[in-house]
Amino acid sequence: MDRDRLHIILQRLQEGGLTPEEGLTLIERETFQDIGFAKLDHQRARRKGFPEVVFAQGKRGEQLVEICRAHLEVHPRLLVTRLSEDQSALLNAELSGGHHNPVARTLSFGLEQARELGRIAVLCAGTSDLPVAEEALETARLMDNRVDLIADVGVAGIHRLFSYRERIEAARVVIVVAGMEGALPSVVGGIVAAPVIAVPTSVGYGASFGGIAALLAMLNSCAPGVTVVNIDNGFGAGFAASQINQTPPLE
Amino acid sequence: MDRDRLHIILQRLQEGGLTPEEGLTLIERETFQDIGFAKLDHQRARRKGFPEVVFAQGKRGEQLVEICRAHLEVHPRLLVTRLSEDQSALLNAELSGGHHNPVARTLSFGLEQARELGRIAVLCAGTSDLPVAEEALETARLMDNRVDLIADVGVAGIHRLFSYRERIEAARVVIVVAGMEGALPSVVGGIVAAPVIAVPTSVGYGASFGGIAALLAMLNSCAPGVTVVNIDNGFGAGFAASQINQTPPLE
Amino acid sequence: MDRDRLHIILQRLQEGGLTPEEGLTLIERETFQDIGFAKLDHQRARRKGFPEVVFAQGKRGEQLVEICRAHLEVHPRLLVTRLSEDQSALLNAELSGGHHNPVARTLSFGLEQARELGRIAVLCAGTSDLPVAEEALETARLMDNRVDLIADVGVAGIHRLFSYRERIEAARVVIVVAGMEGALPSVVGGIVAAPVIAVPTSVGYGASFGGIAALLAMLNSCAPGVTVVNIDNGFGAGFAASQINQTPPLE
Amino acid sequence: MDRDRLHIILQRLQEGGLTPEEGLTLIERETFQDIGFAKLDHQRARRKGFPEVVFAQGKRGEQLVEICRAHLEVHPRLLVTRLSEDQSALLNAELSGGHHNPVARTLSFGLEQARELGRIAVLCAGTSDLPVAEEALETARLMDNRVDLIADVGVAGIHRLFSYRERIEAARVVIVVAGMEGALPSVVGGIVAAPVIAVPTSVGYGASFGGIAALLAMLNSCAPGVTVVNIDNGFGAGFAASQINQTPPLE
Amino acid sequence: MDRDRLHIILQRLQEGGLTPEEGLTLIERETFQDIGFAKLDHQRARRKGFPEVVFAQGKRGEQLVEICRAHLEVHPRLLVTRLSEDQSALLNAELSGGHHNPVARTLSFGLEQARELGRIAVLCAGTSDLPVAEEALETARLMDNRVDLIADVGVAGIHRLFSYRERIEAARVVIVVAGMEGALPSVVGGIVAAPVIAVPTSVGYGASFGGIAALLAMLNSCAPGVTVVNIDNGFGAGFAASQINQTPPLE
Amino acid sequence: MDRDRLHIILQRLQEGGLTPEEGLTLIERETFQDIGFAKLDHQRARRKGFPEVVFAQGKRGEQLVEICRAHLEVHPRLLVTRLSEDQSALLNAELSGGHHNPVARTLSFGLEQARELGRIAVLCAGTSDLPVAEEALETARLMDNRVDLIADVGVAGIHRLFSYRERIEAARVVIVVAGMEGALPSVVGGIVAAPVIAVPTSVGYGASFGGIAALLAMLNSCAPGVTVVNIDNGFGAGFAASQINQTPPLE
Amino acid sequence: MDRDRLHIILQRLQEGGLTPEEGLTLIERETFQDIGFAKLDHQRARRKGFPEVVFAQGKRGEQLVEICRAHLEVHPRLLVTRLSEDQSALLNAELSGGHHNPVARTLSFGLEQARELGRIAVLCAGTSDLPVAEEALETARLMDNRVDLIADVGVAGIHRLFSYRERIEAARVVIVVAGMEGALPSVVGGIVAAPVIAVPTSVGYGASFGGIAALLAMLNSCAPGVTVVNIDNGFGAGFAASQINQTPPLE
Amino acid sequence: MDRDRLHIILQRLQEGGLTPEEGLTLIERETFQDIGFAKLDHQRARRKGFPEVVFAQGKRGEQLVEICRAHLEVHPRLLVTRLSEDQSALLNAELSGGHHNPVARTLSFGLEQARELGRIAVLCAGTSDLPVAEEALETARLMDNRVDLIADVGVAGIHRLFSYRERIEAARVVIVVAGMEGALPSVVGGIVAAPVIAVPTSVGYGASFGGIAALLAMLNSCAPGVTVVNIDNGFGAGFAASQINQTPPLE
Repeated sequence: MDRDRLHIILQRLQEGGLTPEEGLTLIERETFQDIGFAKLDHQRARRKGFPEVVFAQGKRGEQLVEICRAHLEVHPRLLVTRLSEDQSALLNAELSGGHHNPVARTLSFGLEQARELGRIAVLCAGTSDLPVAEEALETARLMDNRVDLIADVGVAGIHRLFSYRERIEAARVVIVVAGMEGALPSVVGGIVAAPVIAVPTSVGYGASFGGIAALLAMLNSCAPGVTVVNIDNGFGAGFAASQINQTPPLE
Repeated sequence: MDRDRLHIILQRLQEGGLTPEEGLTLIERETFQDIGFAKLDHQRARRKGFPEVVFAQGKRGEQLVEICRAHLEVHPRLLVTRLSEDQSALLNAELSGGHHNPVARTLSFGLEQARELGRIAVLCAGTSDLPVAEEALETARLMDNRVDLIADVGVAGIHRLFSYRERIEAARVVIVVAGMEGALPSVVGGIVAAPVIAVPTSVGYGASFGGIAALLAMLNSCAPGVTVVNIDNGFGAGFAASQINQTPPLE
Repeated sequence: MDRDRLHIILQRLQEGGLTPEEGLTLIERETFQDIGFAKLDHQRARRKGFPEVVFAQGKRGEQLVEICRAHLEVHPRLLVTRLSEDQSALLNAELSGGHHNPVARTLSFGLEQARELGRIAVLCAGTSDLPVAEEALETARLMDNRVDLIADVGVAGIHRLFSYRERIEAARVVIVVAGMEGALPSVVGGIVAAPVIAVPTSVGYGASFGGIAALLAMLNSCAPGVTVVNIDNGFGAGFAASQINQTPPLE
Repeated sequence: MDRDRLHIILQRLQEGGLTPEEGLTLIERETFQDIGFAKLDHQRARRKGFPEVVFAQGKRGEQLVEICRAHLEVHPRLLVTRLSEDQSALLNAELSGGHHNPVARTLSFGLEQARELGRIAVLCAGTSDLPVAEEALETARLMDNRVDLIADVGVAGIHRLFSYRERIEAARVVIVVAGMEGALPSVVGGIVAAPVIAVPTSVGYGASFGGIAALLAMLNSCAPGVTVVNIDNGFGAGFAASQINQTPPLE
Repeated sequence: MDRDRLHIILQRLQEGGLTPEEGLTLIERETFQDIGFAKLDHQRARRKGFPEVVFAQGKRGEQLVEICRAHLEVHPRLLVTRLSEDQSALLNAELSGGHHNPVARTLSFGLEQARELGRIAVLCAGTSDLPVAEEALETARLMDNRVDLIADVGVAGIHRLFSYRERIEAARVVIVVAGMEGALPSVVGGIVAAPVIAVPTSVGYGASFGGIAALLAMLNSCAPGVTVVNIDNGFGAGFAASQINQTPPLE
Repeated sequence: MDRDRLHIILQRLQEGGLTPEEGLTLIERETFQDIGFAKLDHQRARRKGFPEVVFAQGKRGEQLVEICRAHLEVHPRLLVTRLSEDQSALLNAELSGGHHNPVARTLSFGLEQARELGRIAVLCAGTSDLPVAEEALETARLMDNRVDLIADVGVAGIHRLFSYRERIEAARVVIVVAGMEGALPSVVGGIVAAPVIAVPTSVGYGASFGGIAALLAMLNSCAPGVTVVNIDNGFGAGFAASQINQTPPLE
Repeated sequence: MDRDRLHIILQRLQEGGLTPEEGLTLIERETFQDIGFAKLDHQRARRKGFPEVVFAQGKRGEQLVEICRAHLEVHPRLLVTRLSEDQSALLNAELSGGHHNPVARTLSFGLEQARELGRIAVLCAGTSDLPVAEEALETARLMDNRVDLIADVGVAGIHRLFSYRERIEAARVVIVVAGMEGALPSVVGGIVAAPVIAVPTSVGYGASFGGIAALLAMLNSCAPGVTVVNIDNGFGAGFAASQINQTPPLE
Repeated sequence: MDRDRLHIILQRLQEGGLTPEEGLTLIERETFQDIGFAKLDHQRARRKGFPEVVFAQGKRGEQLVEICRAHLEVHPRLLVTRLSEDQSALLNAELSGGHHNPVARTLSFGLEQARELGRIAVLCAGTSDLPVAEEALETARLMDNRVDLIADVGVAGIHRLFSYRERIEAARVVIVVAGMEGALPSVVGGIVAAPVIAVPTSVGYGASFGGIAALLAMLNSCAPGVTVVNIDNGFGAGFAASQINQTPPLE
């Protein structure tokens, strides 16, 4: 609840327009909507600058349809992530107007109204890292950012990376997605002046431990300015990159 | 080596001002300065927008003095981190004009010329987290940012945090430093619209495992937009926050 | 075997009502009932103040029916936990009078006789934590406690939690169920004076490691008075909360 | 800030005794006291039913004296934990009236006014676990509980434990402190009806990993109703046990 | 190759019955039989006092039949462990005379000739630990040992264990099988004078980590004389117990 | 891009055969081929002395066929690894001339042209380690090396190993593949003068943790000169062994 | 308390020689002696066949002297382990007749009366493992066993091990002590028919993790019959080996 | 013992020059020299092509002098590693002719006779990795290899690495030493055709865990042909590199 709103309530109280009991109720009630098994926090969307996200994994189909429909009644823009094939088939059948990205496993509503502000580059080390990179990309697109995907530029053939240097340096934020040894963010962080967000992926074999090897490498990066999100968390990286890309100008 | 510079060299070659051998040498040489046991990467400073940083831990006193002196001849602005008491005493005796922060264990040169752009809030959960928070703060200050430290606002007494809401919401980037269970970034991330950088600290006992408990909590934060740096890495958080705070305006 | 009972046996021996051999047998026999592959410890139920619990996971259907039937012959109150859908279908078909909670995956017998003593609040951070929260709730209900479930009050939208403050403070014991970063118990522990039992859940992605991140956070909670049970152990939390809620009055 | 207090402020506003600005200030200010590098949360003490605790580890001597003195001006009852020998010598010299327990490494002020309510039994497996057990004991004593310490009753000589059965069963809450394999809480949890709080200690060798072996054993206890605190956290166990022991009577 | 055999070969050489080349061949050849993808080490059976063991897990049915048949041609006694249901059905159809234990998942050949020497007690904490306990039991039986299984005597109802004290103390070796917190070997090790072999099982939930909690507890046992085998390794425990039980008499 | 090639371009520039713009393009372009979702790094094959490798795991059948076909158009020699049964059936149907090794799960093209240089011995401890050993073997064969497989020579029957000593000592490089306790490389490393490459496998049970036990053992080998590759990485071992075997003669 | 003793008490009760109260006292009292901060379990010594062991680590000098003196009054045989140099100097000054082994860090009393039964071989892989091996040796010696130490026979020079084959095979129990990769027990276990007890040591560097690498290797040994004790636990190995060596003859 | 030697002994036997008993003794004796607490394996030196190495860490000064002197009597070439400052001062005082490298913490004898065969490049990422790199370098030098050290070429300023490309490509084996995120071997492995040996170092902070982050990164390298040695094991890398560099020519 914001301060202005509190000020108004207090003023109305002073002016006699509210009893103290009514004031209490107003202060306590108006912050979210309780729909039974969930508390819809419409304010969070407003607070954080992003309408609604539904994490599909583990949700039953009909439940998912119901939640999405409820959200779409209030907001035209909605992102659904971690969709199984069955879930996306059902949602596409029940709800119209969504943009489905099968690699990213996302469904976006209201994408046609999204603006293309600034520029966020999304790099990934190998083709197996693409699903996570695409999730980051779809998140950023729906949040009004221009995006640029540069795939398969891992460090074992580093001249490939350098050939894209110009495009990478044109970005205001760079998301770097990598599994295995997770070395790419360190190399990129040494090249660019923009903030770098590293996303470890669970791609790997043997002692990669589902992404831990890459995660540790990124946390220990020798390049300053690299920050890290959770393993496979493309959504989180896209969200943070959007916040950074849309940082308001210094006064 | 930037593209414009390469273009000029190639042009001089074509015009006969250089032999191919001279061109080769120029391309290969001009990128850094080799001073024996270290390669001084003056370009990195220019690439990344920050003059010089010296990590003091494990360096012998005289060696440290020599490195700092060499840097200061080239750049007026220099940050030395992770200083022991002996090291800082020696540096203060040998070099004048430094700003010593004993809590942060840093020594800053050229701070008087730093501008105070935008605003970065640095929150910490407990007083034991202060050294890490202050390292972030000193880093950000020397990089031309206005900073605001809010200490001891851990989640076990959450009303303390809320009383600073206004100052927190005024920041363009928020650094949140916490040890133990590392819960503070999730709460802050749920409140503010600005990017949040979480710094786990090694403060804790028993099963905190030198900061791992806090690190895992921050990586698994339920608040979107939270990115994480390494345990106790206040410098990294300050560096990344500065990059974000000084993001150029959208055209 | 309790001391009074031992005293009686010894007295009967002295009075000649028992031979030493009979005394030995009595002392050794009367403590549990051996039914082949299991030793039914009816005394534990009496010792711990709770009739019988059957952990269904990994048991074959017919075996499960047989065990439950045997228990119900002796005690009207029985709790079956961790039921698969097949198991619950079979048990419902074979045994009448049970209360099935499909979210909690429990089946309760004798619930209609349960009293509603005191008040235990069960909070959970997200809707995915509901199965564990409901298991705690069903356990506590069958053990004669009044329960109050408050779902989806995670720390990323902390105003939702505060709107329930009155109900939370009305509880004599608070169970807090959370996955991901496990931050909720620390916040709740800072608000209430009642004992807080924290239950980490295996809900999470990437570096949550099946609940370890939440477990570590809870063990390292900065709020005093928070105790922890095993990952996903809703039954254990409900059991302990019941013990606490029914602590006899100080003399 | 409690609800009654908020009601009063709102009422005064309505009656014209306060302007809205004054109301805002009152609501925001009155919750804690800011003394520079720390925010003294006097309300927490009141909320949680315990005056003040100071964790001495890592604090400089003079700083520690100052903090304790400040606290003692406001509250006569204060607990200082994890004292080094130097720290305790200094505190004893500077402040009078404290009760020093060198095994527990605690200093208690106001202990002479403490009541002896109910009964908390503190068991420990070996003599090396005594410091943690004594910390729990001192915490509980200062919080107005009667305590009973039963030391060196580990499971490798289990008849020792059984000889104390009567005293153990007389307790309203049982704290069980153990290192190495951490088996004692399971055995005790199988015997008593009262809540059992298990405290793993870092006592052990080889693959005990500073208490992890004991911690895991306690979390996986086959006895229901056992809850766990962090490794070596005697204070936390004593605090929680006190909350439970003083649970108000059921209405 | 044993020393006596080497002596004979060298003697034959000296006597002219062998050329040096023949001697070399004899020394190098006679130690095992190469059957393509495997080297059958018939000497190991003789060295270690146990005919043959086939670990079935991961082997294809026909391959398994072939290996068993080959072994049975040479030795009448054979133990097959870790059988799937399909594998055991096939083996039972193809080979006659085997003793199948579906709980232990073993098939024993030549069991009718086994003697019943000494006495090995096999205890297990819960009914879920039975498969591992039965594997230990079948191994020991086929190795000519008398065995005594005592199931479901976990520490949470410790009077059950004590009621079997006489049978346990009658054993020359005691195998203790337990999952969860793995506390049983410590209690048993405190009671008996015979060697105790502890077997952790992967039975457990949450933070039991597939048996690691029990393994660590057993390695850290406070009772001297407890040795440990790998998680779920009933065969290894039965083998070692047989070696101990059949230790030849002191001269 | 190699130095000679750069020299030529620069020379042509000087001679007027190229404009600076054309030079730039040549330098930046000629390093790899972009085919959409992947960047084909033909230079890597040339740089590293090995044509092409396709890692099949997780790739869809048709995608796999397409990639292989594209490679085979350029290079006659190609190795496909980690093939499922479905994938290999499809590839064999669509592409002719491949050599399929079902144990190794590889498909090799151009094997008939491979030379048999030097000698690489591949040892494995048990028959379960064969898939990894065979992958190493197929890799080395296609890279023009003579190979010698010695299977089932684990340390528990060490005379088996010694009977092959002559063949092992004849090798210029030795690959040692082992799961479980991973002891074989230490024994082999103590016998031979050639470089030893150790490959841990995920074969094992209980506390082998999917190959970690073997990996740690190999990293801690007391025999000098043992280097290690990732768990189950037969390809990597074969590749490195080939590099070593074909080390050019000292001048 | 043994069964015969209980029978006698009950008989005396029946015959009127005891009142029930006296019987109770006898049953509860006679099991151990409470000397304040410790419960001396004299029965354990008798139960387990070994007089007394004092673990010196962490005990203050005077406390140690007092405990040892108390023990020696009751039993002539006593083993003190993990002695620091200061502790052993003090004990040697205060108590006469002890046998001090500075490598093993033990002090033994009553060793001159020890018999030399059977034979226990103690092998160690490197000279750094000697302290642990010697602790095992001193424990076994004081427990009436003949011992044979064979040092520095690690697997990297395996011919050294084989040259001692005869002595190793003469042992009734073999203790194998090894750090680093912990491979020695597997090799030994493949050679001998006697039980093998493996002791991992914390000797090692890098990824040996204080003995975990060796511990895992030993638990995963491919040689059957190998059992394991905790890292550096020479005492435990010596104790278990003594139990095995002195196994009574089969009737 | 080599085959030729065995053949001669057998021949002498046949010819009557030896009795079988003498033959046995010869076969068993001649393999190493027992000097009490250690077995000097002079054959290993010959087998592995390197005279003698003494690992100084944890050895007392006089003991170290004695061992080195004993070795130097037999072999003129000796390497001592992991020397403390005290140890190296003592050795330099007692033994003449050694080459002391204080950064590598090594002392080499006989270095003046070493040849400079082939070329081994040793790269390290940062100046803190120098001690490990220098240990590798000294090992390789004493083993008759030409070495080339290239320091401070970490991936965050990757142009520094590329400027040394020619020197790196001139090497027959490349050792890459790196701590923190351990990314350098992947980049180097993608550039050169020679074998790459990666050495993780314990250099790092926070979640680097004493080199585990770098170790995992290197094991998971996306560049084929990279093999790994233990954390900080410069000696092992130098040894393996020497073996590779001196691979005899293909016939």
